[in-house]
Amino acid sequence: MSLSFHIEKAGGRARCGRLVTPHGEIETPVFMPVGTLASVKGVPQDTLEELGAQIILGNTYHLYLRPGVETVRRLGGLHGFMAWRRAILTDSGGFQVFSLNELRKVTEEGVTFRSHLDGSAHFFSPESAMEAQIGLGADIIMAFDECTEYPADRDRMRASMELTARWAARSKKYFEAHKSEVPWKQGSGVRGQRTGTSIQSRAPGIQCPVDGRSIDDVPRNADPIVTDPWPLTPGPCSTQSLFGIVQGGMDRELRKESAERTIEIGFPGYAIGGLSVGEPRALTREIVESTLEHLPAGTPRYLMGVGTPEEIVEYASLGVDMMDCVLPTRAARHGLLFTSEGKVSIKQARYAQDQGPLDPNCGCRVCQRYSRAYLRHLYASNEVLAQVLNTIHNLSFYLDTMRRVRHSISLGEVRFSF
Amino acid sequence: MSLSFHIEKAGGRARCGRLVTPHGEIETPVFMPVGTLASVKGVPQDTLEELGAQIILGNTYHLYLRPGVETVRRLGGLHGFMAWRRAILTDSGGFQVFSLNELRKVTEEGVTFRSHLDGSAHFFSPESAMEAQIGLGADIIMAFDECTEYPADRDRMRASMELTARWAARSKKYFEAHKSEVPWKQGSGVRGQRTGTSIQSRAPGIQCPVDGRSIDDVPRNADPIVTDPWPLTPGPCSTQSLFGIVQGGMDRELRKESAERTIEIGFPGYAIGGLSVGEPRALTREIVESTLEHLPAGTPRYLMGVGTPEEIVEYASLGVDMMDCVLPTRAARHGLLFTSEGKVSIKQARYAQDQGPLDPNCGCRVCQRYSRAYLRHLYASNEVLAQVLNTIHNLSFYLDTMRRVRHSISLGEVRFSF
Repeated sequence: MSLSFHIEKAGGRARCGRLVTPHGEIETPVFMPVGTLASVKGVPQDTLEELGAQIILGNTYHLYLRPGVETVRRLGGLHGFMAWRRAILTDSGGFQVFSLNELRKVTEEGVTFRSHLDGSAHFFSPESAMEAQIGLGADIIMAFDECTEYPADRDRMRASMELTARWAARSKKYFEAHKSEVPWKQGSGVRGQRTGTSIQSRAPGIQCPVDGRSIDDVPRNADPIVTDPWPLTPGPCSTQSLFGIVQGGMDRELRKESAERTIEIGFPGYAIGGLSVGEPRALTREIVESTLEHLPAGTPRYLMGVGTPEEIVEYASLGVDMMDCVLPTRAARHGLLFTSEGKVSIKQARYAQDQGPLDPNCGCRVCQRYSRAYLRHLYASNEVLAQVLNTIHNLSFYLDTMRRVRHSISLGEVRFSF
Repeated sequence: MSLSFHIEKAGGRARCGRLVTPHGEIETPVFMPVGTLASVKGVPQDTLEELGAQIILGNTYHLYLRPGVETVRRLGGLHGFMAWRRAILTDSGGFQVFSLNELRKVTEEGVTFRSHLDGSAHFFSPESAMEAQIGLGADIIMAFDECTEYPADRDRMRASMELTARWAARSKKYFEAHKSEVPWKQGSGVRGQRTGTSIQSRAPGIQCPVDGRSIDDVPRNADPIVTDPWPLTPGPCSTQSLFGIVQGGMDRELRKESAERTIEIGFPGYAIGGLSVGEPRALTREIVESTLEHLPAGTPRYLMGVGTPEEIVEYASLGVDMMDCVLPTRAARHGLLFTSEGKVSIKQARYAQDQGPLDPNCGCRVCQRYSRAYLRHLYASNEVLAQVLNTIHNLSFYLDTMRRVRHSISLGEVRFSF
């Protein structure tokens, strides 16, 4: 079993549920923090666990360049490499390559692009993107797609959507033939013998949420610091899951056709890609709303690269189950913090002597300990701790926001707002 | 009571003891991590607590420029400002100003210097340096001294040493007249009303190590996340303690005279300054060893700005009680890591696929979770998490080293090596 999705409660178009992956359960709707290079910038993995992150993202394009897929594969895939036992999703590299603009060339076969690091030439095809993602070993991987630029005329949008559909079929074909090569299979996700607290000191009898194994069955040499019942090496029958991506630009008809063709190929989950590429927010919403109508109700729906706190709440209310965005982490690095009282630009002089917590309604370790004055000082002084603390808070705010959304849905609330 | 020092065991010249400050006890010999701008670069305060740091340093020169002494004072001093309940020591600014080279001018009255940030002109005298340190509110503050450059001829060393002696007397005079102005007195070290876990949820009856108050007496609005019995606002009678600094360049006779003159003025602790300024290591050791002979046995001895792991062990064996150095934190930022098996330059390609922990004998959260390959990847990819994790490990290594030294001394071992 690689993936199962259970909708536990629906209210209006929104629904909350549980997505079970080889590396643990995810409560949906879920916001997935972005860990581009196998690190959510500045945040240690144990802090991510504390924050309640159940799934994080890795970017195939970046990891392919550094440290390279083969290195990650040999070290047990991303889970072993970055010592993260919970679920991971990788993108296909399509969007990242799309962002390179001048450095890429698209053909039927795939995309030739130049590294943003050293200008070296590389080639991604649906097959090689699958090969890379299998080597990285995320729980959920994405079909290789072309992200249509905005604006684009209808012919261009159609051609691009059709290319994505053909690439989706090739992605699936390669994946089905090679999915057994995931690095979990080699049991290489566990480091060698370790000293320290034995895993036996944990309470016995805890069951793994995925395959029902007792915690007592987890290898003795597993990382002793992690007290999750999440398995680092999943059960013997589990593999990755490949999601399809709906494209079609800003055209509702093309989006419908893309959805139908992607569903025809058949995937355990469907993403809406090609949005947040410069179009007006109202148009994003319109396309999301109309596309969702054409996606099957029983499978997870993933809206890629979205959004602000207000937007993730809104899209959850429309029936989106999964979202990711660099906004909370990137904004944190620029001193822009999300709070229950609105956005705070912590660099402002008005906070220089503000003894209050960043967000009086937030229970995160940053708001519980530090003052706005201290956070402002760290940012103004270019201290690294500014990025660390700001990122922890912003992620806490996003994850708490989704927790509240799930709670609202579970209570049967049809409408909820930010 | 502002400071007390109890030697619990001596072995040869080494001794272990307890230094009791208004913000908690410190086991000596102690290594003090450097938190230049009210932050140990990249490390959250709760992680420092976990690592067992009992006292950290702040730099008066840097804090005077940013965020300014008045801001820190208003926010309750450094303890309140940076939400650190344990002990703090500030330097006097003398060494930092000395490091500015071309930007300073020394007279009998004090030092005129230009900010390294914006070139603005400033003036430090013994009086103003005390005023600044009282405003910052560290538990232990340092007399304003002139750090003699190296090399220097004997006349220069003597003149500089004598200036330091006159400044020490002025420092003490100002401090004695103004020590009641420490910001703890105003009770401003505690933030306003907070939500979250009440302090009452802690086990009752814990006694403060300093003034014997029960934890139940600690104000309800104290920061609830900190479970230390260390008081954020010390008892009503406590003030800061001012340490004297022995100078005298690389001349043993001048060092002896400086020690005698500083002791004559009278301080509750004595530091050896003006070392690690470019002289050979053997000379440093010679000067430390000879100077220690002239310092009273019953007061704490602080060797400033030292050193490597080998050196801090060696100086502890000679009878030094306190040390500080930027080496573990600065080296971490350059990927240089201290381990039980020697130094590791984590940037090296040889670690790219190394699944082992950084230090197999280290129990820190970095070594317990991450591989050398992952740490190498973070460093090579310029990820901020590299600095965070590297610094945590290096500090853990230094603090563990001193823990082992204390253990050796407590067992009565006369000689111990790194």
